Amino acid sequence: MVKIILDAMGGDDAPYSTCLGAVSALEKDKELYLILTGRKAEIESELKKYSYDKARLEIVDCPDVISMNDSPTEAVKRKDSSLMAAYWMLKKEDDTCALVTAGSTGATIVGGQLILGRIRGIKRPALCPAIPNSRGGVTLLCDCGANAECKPVMLCQFAILACAYAEAGFGVKNPKVGLLSNGTEEHKGDPMHQETYACLSKMQGINFVGNVEGRDIMMGECDVVVADGFSGNIALKSIEGCGKMVLGVMKKEFSSSVSSKIGYLFLRKAIKRMRGQLDFEKFGGALLLGLKKVVVKTHGSSKASTVAASIANAAAIYRNGLIGEVEKKLAVVDFSALVPGEE
Amino acid sequence: MVKIILDAMGGDDAPYSTCLGAVSALEKDKELYLILTGRKAEIESELKKYSYDKARLEIVDCPDVISMNDSPTEAVKRKDSSLMAAYWMLKKEDDTCALVTAGSTGATIVGGQLILGRIRGIKRPALCPAIPNSRGGVTLLCDCGANAECKPVMLCQFAILACAYAEAGFGVKNPKVGLLSNGTEEHKGDPMHQETYACLSKMQGINFVGNVEGRDIMMGECDVVVADGFSGNIALKSIEGCGKMVLGVMKKEFSSSVSSKIGYLFLRKAIKRMRGQLDFEKFGGALLLGLKKVVVKTHGSSKASTVAASIANAAAIYRNGLIGEVEKKLAVVDFSALVPGEE
Repeated sequence: MVKIILDAMGGDDAPYSTCLGAVSALEKDKELYLILTGRKAEIESELKKYSYDKARLEIVDCPDVISMNDSPTEAVKRKDSSLMAAYWMLKKEDDTCALVTAGSTGATIVGGQLILGRIRGIKRPALCPAIPNSRGGVTLLCDCGANAECKPVMLCQFAILACAYAEAGFGVKNPKVGLLSNGTEEHKGDPMHQETYACLSKMQGINFVGNVEGRDIMMGECDVVVADGFSGNIALKSIEGCGKMVLGVMKKEFSSSVSSKIGYLFLRKAIKRMRGQLDFEKFGGALLLGLKKVVVKTHGSSKASTVAASIANAAAIYRNGLIGEVEKKLAVVDFSALVPGEE
Repeated sequence: MVKIILDAMGGDDAPYSTCLGAVSALEKDKELYLILTGRKAEIESELKKYSYDKARLEIVDCPDVISMNDSPTEAVKRKDSSLMAAYWMLKKEDDTCALVTAGSTGATIVGGQLILGRIRGIKRPALCPAIPNSRGGVTLLCDCGANAECKPVMLCQFAILACAYAEAGFGVKNPKVGLLSNGTEEHKGDPMHQETYACLSKMQGINFVGNVEGRDIMMGECDVVVADGFSGNIALKSIEGCGKMVLGVMKKEFSSSVSSKIGYLFLRKAIKRMRGQLDFEKFGGALLLGLKKVVVKTHGSSKASTVAASIANAAAIYRNGLIGEVEKKLAVVDFSALVPGEE
């Protein structure tokens, strides 16, 4: 049995999206057990609409809900909130494996650090989405926003975290790792990135291929792109904005004339496949890596299908031993020898 | 007469692309006079293929060509190269208005700083491309790679430079300026970006709308996005990579079956318009802003049509008084009062 906690109140359409997502995930995975945290009456009234295996779903009543506008450091004190109650349960109950939330990113990061806690040796957790690439696979971008200010040791650890995810989540052996910079040459970037380049080059157990540029993320030049959280976030959102604009222009142009509309009828299937290939959501959000258990943060706008995909993703990654993989990779690196000035 | 210097040897397809681009630009603008720098024999043999107004085109023989792999600081010493000879002429001959090059970005930046020189008061030049946005206009991204390390005063000046370009290049009155960060809230980013936020908020003559995210660049939330050159470069290239991937997937899917191929026939015009709307090259490359004269840097892979667009862009911006506009905007800001620690 894989026991996963779902923050049933997180996300714009919660608890509708989370309840339907939970039901759909239970249907697909017979080994799954779900604990939904949130306002019990609201959750029950949603769940009543569906038939599902009631023996594998449990509700923990939490009257409080953290909103996107709440300060993360204040929010972490609200133990009765659906998100923080989930974190406390994840910390205290040994048989819980993972948390899935579409709630506030800031509160998810702070709660993860302060309640659940980091894997021993890890300095900071990192957000890591899987971005579809032109080779038909995914590129993992780590960090994409948890840490606006980074030091070389943090980026070296992001490489370890994302490589473990590439292996446990996508079965990639010896993943290729690039460092996101403003050019491919070794001397590119500021001193922090130059130092990170030197450390990654020397690092045991990491298949470092050098600097990569923004365009290489979607071109799939490597499996893992290591980034400071500031520019990683900018890369991710620039890609999202571009994708959104292209699909918007396409929609407008494809309904602009009778001829276009006829063409669209013939191309419907191809366009559907295309949208599928460009769909960020199908991998079920970003992982918050570096914590003691698996935490999946999906978009606030997640639909039920994304919530279901996130739950399935969390279960798969837990089963494939993500946390153990991180610990194994950490054990072979002596950070004090690798990064000058680190204890 | 608008006298523009074209580095005829810069770019992957030079001098073929540059000569054809020059001929096409001369044809469209009867007030244009072009000086082509480069290997005279090669240029003449290209130009022989076309008919054009020979009274408005002059060749200056330069035996040396700077390659993409040459060190910019070494390259700047090579006075006989097509790029550096162009810069010297631009500096010394009062009636020259602008330079267009598809050559090495690094050498273009260093040559601009060391030979042509900066506008009085400007700390560093910045690269500024025009990116098509979903409102059907453009968003100017400044800096996108000339400065990997930035200070707040530099970013404040990038705002001035790009606003002058928005006005002189695209007729935008009182352009909206955003600061590229990892979230819209004021406290986002590292201390350098937080300080820049505070300075931009206080700055005279700048219509600052606050922080913007990567996705806002193509969504067209503002006319000018100010960025440090490191993350600006990552944003630009992430967008390029996404656009390239989407067009690649589209091409593959639209020829994947008989039905798709039929659909494509009906959609041909719509797809052409769509490509046009997403075409980065039609605005003729990025401006290298902050220098004493107009400098346009186009992609190394520029085709003749892009070279022609870049020349037309340079001429229009010169005619609309870009440099005077920058000087006017600079004059109203007291940087020593605005930015703590600046002289």
